[in-house]
Amino acid sequence: MTPITIVSLGSGEPEDITLRAYRALQDVERIYAIGEAAVEIIRALPSGAVLEKKVTILSVPMQSDRRAAASAYEALAGQLEADCLADISTALVTIGDAGTYSSAGYVCRLLRERDMPHFILPGIPYYMTLPACLSRPLVLGEQSLLVLSRVESAEQLREAIDRDRVVVVMKLSRSEEAVRDFLRTDPPVSILYGEYIGDEERELVTDSLRSLPETPFPYFSLLIIKPSTR
Amino acid sequence: MTPITIVSLGSGEPEDITLRAYRALQDVERIYAIGEAAVEIIRALPSGAVLEKKVTILSVPMQSDRRAAASAYEALAGQLEADCLADISTALVTIGDAGTYSSAGYVCRLLRERDMPHFILPGIPYYMTLPACLSRPLVLGEQSLLVLSRVESAEQLREAIDRDRVVVVMKLSRSEEAVRDFLRTDPPVSILYGEYIGDEERELVTDSLRSLPETPFPYFSLLIIKPSTR
Repeated sequence: MTPITIVSLGSGEPEDITLRAYRALQDVERIYAIGEAAVEIIRALPSGAVLEKKVTILSVPMQSDRRAAASAYEALAGQLEADCLADISTALVTIGDAGTYSSAGYVCRLLRERDMPHFILPGIPYYMTLPACLSRPLVLGEQSLLVLSRVESAEQLREAIDRDRVVVVMKLSRSEEAVRDFLRTDPPVSILYGEYIGDEERELVTDSLRSLPETPFPYFSLLIIKPSTR
Repeated sequence: MTPITIVSLGSGEPEDITLRAYRALQDVERIYAIGEAAVEIIRALPSGAVLEKKVTILSVPMQSDRRAAASAYEALAGQLEADCLADISTALVTIGDAGTYSSAGYVCRLLRERDMPHFILPGIPYYMTLPACLSRPLVLGEQSLLVLSRVESAEQLREAIDRDRVVVVMKLSRSEEAVRDFLRTDPPVSILYGEYIGDEERELVTDSLRSLPETPFPYFSLLIIKPSTR
């Protein structure tokens, strides 16, 4: 059996991949990518043309369609298992960090259930790239950090800010109403906002509340809300 | 003026540095490192011997001695400013991620106040490396992630787990009592524990509650508490 490597590509620039992850991509025979964004990063790497030839792109339904997503993950785990048993070395690649709200995380679970040997190579998640883009630290000293994949209400954000927590809202588009409600109350916060981070043509990052787009937030968007420094 | 680059070295293996950060270390004339751990990572990189010659090690007092730490950060910012004005290219390096509970975060603030141009290159924080070491995802789906730099009480952990949050306890040694109190109540959780991650000789990682050391947690230790999967 040849272990499967789950490779995080990081976020932002293609060269935000780690040396170890980059080496893993060079070493394996087959690369499975969930989604086109991962392939674009691979293509832009120094040896991208060579790496791209090893890539199989998988389209996995949105996680919101749970049943369809679950069966796609099962199929992918099955493919990885077959390669592993046939001693073909494989990497499953994902944008951001494989352990952080990633489809690859579900696949890891399945590989674990199937007793398939696998390694995870961590990567930089988008919520660390965004503050770096704006030359700001994410979290300092005694503050806590709360990362939410869904915001239930403006009240939830208010409570977190009152407790001096830096709040990251992932998958912002599905929490749009609660977030806008909260911001309308003129709370004592500063914000960092990013959409399409890493996509040269469409990337927008800002730390100005007034520059926040008024149109609906796109799917690839992210908001960090920080208690105002006193 | 030559901009200052704040370079995150990542955590775990030296090759967990990003390609971009590695290139920055090669490009600059001077490297300032806060603490010996950062220098050990640099030394272990492919061109470590060359890079090490550029390094100046700074010893910064523990953040708990705030006044002494603050004046060390001021002195460091002053040095970086002087180099920047003299058109000497510099990197300030830090283990983990520069934006995540890092002394470099304070230095960034000072550089900002002094209007000194600077970039941050993000890196992988220890709390992402630990689950990867154990082939586990950190956080999935609808769960939230709460990163605490200090735990006030066992009750605070109970509340977070009840809300289906994955809890990361940074700087574990100073929250030892609250964490042990919580774990003694036999809560419905699984844990990931690591100490001296990245230090070949002393590293210990485990996902077994029974393997948790009974002696005091060392300064370089980290605990992740996850709600049991139902």
